[in-house]
Amino acid sequence: MKSQTEYLTFNTKSRRDYINITGKIEEIVRKSGIQEGICLVNAMHITSSVYINDAESGLIQDFDDFLEELAPHEPISKYRHNRTGEDNGDAHIKRTIMGREVVVAVTKGRLDFGPWEQIYYAEFDGRRPKRVLVKVIGE
Amino acid sequence: MKSQTEYLTFNTKSRRDYINITGKIEEIVRKSGIQEGICLVNAMHITSSVYINDAESGLIQDFDDFLEELAPHEPISKYRHNRTGEDNGDAHIKRTIMGREVVVAVTKGRLDFGPWEQIYYAEFDGRRPKRVLVKVIGE
Amino acid sequence: MKSQTEYLTFNTKSRRDYINITGKIEEIVRKSGIQEGICLVNAMHITSSVYINDAESGLIQDFDDFLEELAPHEPISKYRHNRTGEDNGDAHIKRTIMGREVVVAVTKGRLDFGPWEQIYYAEFDGRRPKRVLVKVIGE
Repeated sequence: MKSQTEYLTFNTKSRRDYINITGKIEEIVRKSGIQEGICLVNAMHITSSVYINDAESGLIQDFDDFLEELAPHEPISKYRHNRTGEDNGDAHIKRTIMGREVVVAVTKGRLDFGPWEQIYYAEFDGRRPKRVLVKVIGE
Repeated sequence: MKSQTEYLTFNTKSRRDYINITGKIEEIVRKSGIQEGICLVNAMHITSSVYINDAESGLIQDFDDFLEELAPHEPISKYRHNRTGEDNGDAHIKRTIMGREVVVAVTKGRLDFGPWEQIYYAEFDGRRPKRVLVKVIGE
Repeated sequence: MKSQTEYLTFNTKSRRDYINITGKIEEIVRKSGIQEGICLVNAMHITSSVYINDAESGLIQDFDDFLEELAPHEPISKYRHNRTGEDNGDAHIKRTIMGREVVVAVTKGRLDFGPWEQIYYAEFDGRRPKRVLVKVIGE
């Protein structure tokens, strides 16, 4: 069994952001030389997500509206977590809805994707460096 | 390390549907000959889900009601995504709540399941052929 | 490829509970002797979750409030599932929001975690013995 482990770092300008990282993940899979296996991609912070969906700007805004309606950033006092002095209580919940990780099949040396699958990094408490782990295992 | 990759296709009659695919997955695991490993099952489209829960018709209706309340299909104009001419903005969100994939342990050649675990394919924008990927890796 | 499979049992005193199981999972990874691979941790029951987030009591209460608002336990009659004589319709939905499983990278023999990642078992229908599966595969 072979494995390849890489770490990506993101530092978004705004509190919330959605970044298509498919190209970066494809590159790591190619570099691994693994033909058959799986690729794990996960946020290493607990206020951001990795998810798979469409690269369509209207949809990304729909997700953001949906999350902000379910777990609004303000009022800050809404979240007990913010009594610790933080203001990111909402980000922990938003990340939970969108998910921490994706596991993608690697077949014939490539991400085995349907026609519209794209991997996104979703940031809910940005403006600081945050990491994503990519691990490919297989043969 | 051995691996087995299969694709299942579903074409539901209604827009939304919930299909128990446990038997099909068990068959693929058996065919793979893998004794110890993991089995990844994921929707290859971004408006459908694979999830694990109970084979109980009341519960499935509860899920459907819950999703339709959180992200209703109508009004179509509610979703920016639908300005592209699509009408499936809600399906992208419903699929996100239910999840894209499951990873199941394979132990002694079988899906290592608790007493009530069943694998479902959940369709939120059907009436056309859509695929599910199954990949078993192990030894 | 090596693998290690273990089962943990929890029997919570209250209906809902959130238990940090990170230490137990680290111990299983160490015992496996696997240096590079992945670790799957999943609830084996369909009314409980395994998720990764912060070990902060205010946040855990925020999660519980959020889930109870989205899918309240009462009225019992709200859920079709409860017509079977059960009273845990809400627990099936809560578990779906929080997720069934996590997949964690194992690197250099350890869980490859960011600074705040902790693995939790979330119980939504406790007061009886329920199991969690841990499977480590790799080399």
